[in-house]
Order: sequence, then C-alpha cells, then structure tokens
Amino acid sequence: MKTGNVIGIVGGVGPYAGLDLNRKIFDQTIASSDQEHLPVILASFSAIIDDRTRYLLKGDVENPAQKLFTVLELLAAAGATVAGIPCNTAHAESIFEKIEKKVRGSGLDIRLLNMISEVIDHIRSVFPKDVRIGVLSTMGTYKTGLYKQYMEEAEIGVLLPDKKQAEDIHLSIYDPGYGIKARSNPVTKEARQIVVNAVRELGERGAAAVVLGCTELPMALPSDSLDGIPLIDPATILARALIRETYPEKLKSLLA
Amino acid sequence: MKTGNVIGIVGGVGPYAGLDLNRKIFDQTIASSDQEHLPVILASFSAIIDDRTRYLLKGDVENPAQKLFTVLELLAAAGATVAGIPCNTAHAESIFEKIEKKVRGSGLDIRLLNMISEVIDHIRSVFPKDVRIGVLSTMGTYKTGLYKQYMEEAEIGVLLPDKKQAEDIHLSIYDPGYGIKARSNPVTKEARQIVVNAVRELGERGAAAVVLGCTELPMALPSDSLDGIPLIDPATILARALIRETYPEKLKSLLA
Repeated sequence: MKTGNVIGIVGGVGPYAGLDLNRKIFDQTIASSDQEHLPVILASFSAIIDDRTRYLLKGDVENPAQKLFTVLELLAAAGATVAGIPCNTAHAESIFEKIEKKVRGSGLDIRLLNMISEVIDHIRSVFPKDVRIGVLSTMGTYKTGLYKQYMEEAEIGVLLPDKKQAEDIHLSIYDPGYGIKARSNPVTKEARQIVVNAVRELGERGAAAVVLGCTELPMALPSDSLDGIPLIDPATILARALIRETYPEKLKSLLA
Repeated sequence: MKTGNVIGIVGGVGPYAGLDLNRKIFDQTIASSDQEHLPVILASFSAIIDDRTRYLLKGDVENPAQKLFTVLELLAAAGATVAGIPCNTAHAESIFEKIEKKVRGSGLDIRLLNMISEVIDHIRSVFPKDVRIGVLSTMGTYKTGLYKQYMEEAEIGVLLPDKKQAEDIHLSIYDPGYGIKARSNPVTKEARQIVVNAVRELGERGAAAVVLGCTELPMALPSDSLDGIPLIDPATILARALIRETYPEKLKSLLA
C-alpha cells in the first residue's frame, strides 16, 4: 500500500505509553473528520522487549536495542517512514545508539527520531538561557544521567531529585501494587501523590519547569502545569515532532 | 518476527475508536508488567477509508470494504493472526460481507472477528430471554437495521430511538462543531447530553440494557451503567473476544 509518509510507533514500552503517544499525535493534528487524520502504525510487542531500566541497572537481561530494532523493521516493512520510541529509558546511550547503528547498517527506509533531543530543542526554544529545569524519571534514566548529559551539552541547568526521592518516583512507575505500569486506568492516589510531591519540591528548589521524563509520569499528572510550574511531556513533544517530519501543514499551533 | 498469535486492529475508523479498542485490550489483560501484555498492531489509515455512513446513506463514495481489506492485508503481512474492526457501521452487510469474502478469497492467514455477533453472544449469555435491548448508533447503522437484524435473528427484542432522536445521536457523533469525531478529548457537554437523554428514554420505554452501537458513543458515556440501566460497549466485548481467541488464559474475569 503506497500512502506516502506513515508514522510508526515502537509501542509496548510500555503498552499504555504507546497508546498515549498515538493519542497525542491525533490530538496535535488539525482534523475535524476521520479522513483528515494521519496514517499511524502502533506496534506493541511488550513481551519480547526486556525492561530497559533492568538492563541498565542490573544487566541480567539482553540489551533491549535488538528487539526494539526488530519492531522498527516490522514498522518499516509495513510502510512506516518516520518513527519514535515513547520510552525515555530506551534513549540511554547504551541502548539508543545501538538501535541507531542498526537502523543505519540495515538500509531500512525509516527515520528514527530522538525524543530527548526533541525535548532539549523545545526547552531551548521556549525558556530563557539561564533557567534550571527539573527532571523526574525511572532509576534507569536517573543513574545513567540521560537528561543531565543532554542538558549539560546544551548548557541547560538541570535539577534532579535526591536518591531517596528518585527511588520513590521509580516505585510510582514500577510498584506492582500501586505503580502506573500496573494500574493506569485510573492511576492510584499513591502514585499520583509521589509525583505531585516531587514536582513541588523541584519547584521550591527553583525549577522553571519540570520534565516528566518517563512516559508513564504524565498519566499521573496530565495537566500542563502544577502550582504554576510548567510540566514538559516528552510524548507530546515527540508527537509534534513526528507530525512536523511527515505532514507539517497538519500540525496544530502550540497556542491552540 | 515469529511471536505466535498477534492481535490486529483495523484502526482509523475512527482514529480514536482504534485507540479505544487497543486500550480495552490492555485493560482486559491479566498483566502487572510490560512483558505480560499481549502483542497488538494498530494500523490507522483514516485518510484512505471513506466514511461508512456516507457510503450507506448516499453511496457517493466507494465501498469502504476495499480499503478496510487493504488494512487487513497490511496487518496480516505484519504478523497479525486475529483482527477486529472497531466500527459498528462497517459491520453493515453490504460492507462487512464484502470484506469477509475478500479475506476468504485472498488466503490471508488472518481471522476477522465480527463485533456485532460478539455483542449478540454476550447479550444471550448475560440477559434473560424475554428482555428488550435498546440500541444507539449512527444513521448508517440505524437505517440499515444492522443490530435490529442480528437481534431479531437471535430472538432478542430490540428498542430503537425514533427518527428525530436517531438524527440527534448521529449529530452527537458527526457534528463538526460539537460531535465526538471532531472533539473527544474531552467530549463536549452537548454531545454527552444527547447520549444521556437517549439512554434515559430507552430506559423509560423498558430497555433492560442499551448497546452503545457506535464506537464513539462510549467516549461520551464511559461508565458501565446510567441511572441503573446497563450500558453495553461493543468495543469492550470485541477486546475480550480478541483476547479469548488468542491468549484466553490472559483474559480477566468479567467480575474483576
């Protein structure tokens, strides 16, 4: 089937984060009928992709890069031309660079966007140069210093929670009882409260905005801001980047 | 990529209905980590598929069966083994039978479930024999008598809104200003009120339950019941059928 540009989503990491990115692509598209919407393929193969954080912290599972690339191959074969992975932790250097290398080496006709680079570009374009930006994430993203590294390279001041708080945030995502990965419809009060407290504390420490740097976190806090602190949702930014790279004329204004 | 059974969703009809079915598959799966979720491919190709209701009522666009089948071919090529179409109107005889015939003729290794048959089976198994069931839908589904025909064949009493009300329901879905297809996040108060009023009236006329027979309608009324009238959501029933036909051991109990 030839339909021009098609957006691909490497879903399943986690399953609801894939749906969330797909919804944001539809939400950010100028359309008032089905026919005005963009072509999107969401492939959720959760079971074959090992946990990204576990790989980074324990290393007792295979590098998820291989299976993430397998899903990209499937998307490319199905016609996807530009793709994104709605998982911050999968953007850690040891995973993401391996995927990028595989894509380059394969000759696949698909372009993989980098969600973290898109977030950095967004921050540079929206905030003045000397502000500090807070980041909440999984322990995998926290310990590998993913956002810290990208932000320092872009000369953006970064504020991170302390280790105890970072562990609480991690549990708000992963706890099998109250964590967002286990219970997202609706998110539990306990998970939400952890995220709210962490955003407030980063605000008190002077954060001009807070990046919800794990695709599960905006499910606990879906608004644009909390107590006047702007919240940056990497999935919304990736959704907009995917539209911009495929059908830029269909991208809603940021002020809409 | 060999991964055994894979669920395929013919998305884009409409785009949010595809997401909704995919979310319900995840919601109805026994899973507490990413890796326990099922493989699903959602292909949204809204732009190539003409409006189902317009085809049925005006006939000035091509039969959507051809392009719905094209998406099934794409899903089968990507590995999907069992698929569903989360659009009630696409199950009208003149569309759905043509798709089924194409699938049979093609030799594609994919099995297409029939959402309406699944709803009928559900009603037979849950409600006593002599009740009457209300149905709300688009004008396409209303005028072709889709549910009416299936229900009469199964000897289930059916209650439909009068023509004026049916037109209001249609507008709650299609109106470019307040309709659910144009504005679903959140659904407008106007669209919701039309659906609420119609359910209440069917209840007053004696409906033991009401089928929300267009995949957009449950977005206006996401609860299980209204004023004590059970609401039947075909997308939830299709989601459960897709799990039952692929990984039955992962299907949540109805009472959970």
